[in-house]
Amino acid sequence: MDILAKYSEALDVHLTSSVAVKEPIQLYEPIQYIVSLGGKRLRPTLTLLSCDFFGTSYEKAMNAALAIELFHNFSLIHDDIMDNAPLRRGEETVHEKWDLNTGILSGDAMLILAYQLFEVYDASLFRDLAKLFSKTALQVCEGQQYDVDFETRDDVTIPEYIKMIDYKTAVLIGAAMKMGAIVAGASESCKERIYAFGRNLGIAFQLQDDYLDAFGNPKNFGKQVGGDIITNKKTFLYLKALQNGTKDEAEELEHLFSINPKDPSDKIQRVTAIFKSTGASEATKEEIVKYTQKANEDLEKIAISSESKNTLREFGLSLMARSV
Amino acid sequence: MDILAKYSEALDVHLTSSVAVKEPIQLYEPIQYIVSLGGKRLRPTLTLLSCDFFGTSYEKAMNAALAIELFHNFSLIHDDIMDNAPLRRGEETVHEKWDLNTGILSGDAMLILAYQLFEVYDASLFRDLAKLFSKTALQVCEGQQYDVDFETRDDVTIPEYIKMIDYKTAVLIGAAMKMGAIVAGASESCKERIYAFGRNLGIAFQLQDDYLDAFGNPKNFGKQVGGDIITNKKTFLYLKALQNGTKDEAEELEHLFSINPKDPSDKIQRVTAIFKSTGASEATKEEIVKYTQKANEDLEKIAISSESKNTLREFGLSLMARSV
Repeated sequence: MDILAKYSEALDVHLTSSVAVKEPIQLYEPIQYIVSLGGKRLRPTLTLLSCDFFGTSYEKAMNAALAIELFHNFSLIHDDIMDNAPLRRGEETVHEKWDLNTGILSGDAMLILAYQLFEVYDASLFRDLAKLFSKTALQVCEGQQYDVDFETRDDVTIPEYIKMIDYKTAVLIGAAMKMGAIVAGASESCKERIYAFGRNLGIAFQLQDDYLDAFGNPKNFGKQVGGDIITNKKTFLYLKALQNGTKDEAEELEHLFSINPKDPSDKIQRVTAIFKSTGASEATKEEIVKYTQKANEDLEKIAISSESKNTLREFGLSLMARSV
Repeated sequence: MDILAKYSEALDVHLTSSVAVKEPIQLYEPIQYIVSLGGKRLRPTLTLLSCDFFGTSYEKAMNAALAIELFHNFSLIHDDIMDNAPLRRGEETVHEKWDLNTGILSGDAMLILAYQLFEVYDASLFRDLAKLFSKTALQVCEGQQYDVDFETRDDVTIPEYIKMIDYKTAVLIGAAMKMGAIVAGASESCKERIYAFGRNLGIAFQLQDDYLDAFGNPKNFGKQVGGDIITNKKTFLYLKALQNGTKDEAEELEHLFSINPKDPSDKIQRVTAIFKSTGASEATKEEIVKYTQKANEDLEKIAISSESKNTLREFGLSLMARSV
């Protein structure tokens, strides 16, 4: 799509200038670095699209879009520390390339820089954007905490899991789109619907990620297929398999998620077989369809052109069909 | 002072409710914990005092004061990680009591909670307060980074050192007071002057801390006397002694700051002797007087009652005479 290429270029130009390195170098260099690692710029693109579709030039939403992207990158720096991750997009993570303290402090500065980006807006817009930003940022922290908590709990329910991915991933996608609508001065109901659209799409997106982790094509899936299984991560697939499986299947699955074999290929094979035999893989696909449909129902009610709706729907579909 | 006791009580009540623990517990409990460790509540008290003196009830400045205190506590959580500190106010630090990840994530949430506290104000006040908050918070991060950088540099100048303590400590005190003035709707010049007052007082305060670390009464000084010397910290005293000392004194001092003896008492004695013989201790006292006088000059120009000025001056003096 032509429009997406235009946004992508504009975002890159503005991102580069918003993370220019200044003194003290050691504080700002990691910020430039993490942003330079790239990524799809999915969230800020959604902000620009949304603003445009509600009838205001995407340029007015640029700083809100940048704030969302900086926040996302801030959370990557701190999450990578918490996950002990050596690599991010194939390059060293900030705490690996520099050190723990640099990761913490540069992350903190990046969160503050994100807030500062709203300062170009008038007082009323500034307040609306910063409020949504704070609410969302806090939910992302809560989602991250739930994710950590779930690692050591054996009684996580499916609604709890959905809430976790909603907070950790989906609300930021909803907020990204709502910010575009806020900048464009859309009506309250439109703002709420585009928010719900993004949020439901975000949940579908994360469930798809869970599904692809087990059943994705290794050639196309950006990450290691079976990564969640190797790390015993309680995804939707796992929880559904426990819920729907026979006593034997559940016991075997729980056993498999208590071991860490050096060569995980047998484990992956057995777990994916259980995901299939229990109907968990089908149930996950149905859940993805459910949230995608929910998103499309939200979209239908929004007062934007059908052309714009098509673009958003296609964009949603392209996310679902994504291989990266 | 009666007024300070009243503020202190009101602050405690509001602080307690602003850090109430909710789900997920693991995220919010450390926030309640760090705040419950107490402290002088110096910064929020200054916000309330400032608002009151500019003719508006201190209650209107309560949320701004709480935001300053939450930010201060956020920075303590993350700084304690960076300093590998086991104790804070005699109790376990957050990352010790819980773990590293909890310290990072709860700190992040606390920074966001601080921003949210401004949401009670109207759009224009919200923007003014959040802008000052972001600018100040970023300077505090920069100050922390300079402090880290200085550890491995042997060419730190005195102006660089003053800038570091200004950013790391003083700007937050200035911002605390300016926020009170903002909420009270004080004139631009009054806002700038109360900011300058707080900032100069903050620099004097930190220099006093440096001085007391070497020459304080062990009975009254809250921390270990000689702590900066033991950890080879390049304070104003050290930099001034290097600058003013003879070649022999400078060489001995540099040597002493390159060793870490098990029993540091001889080292502390030699270093403090050099601080005296080079005139660094006197020079530090003069510098404290200089910044205190600067602060009082700022104060003189402010349009508040002489009674209020006296209270602020006394409060400043009480800080300088502090033993805790």
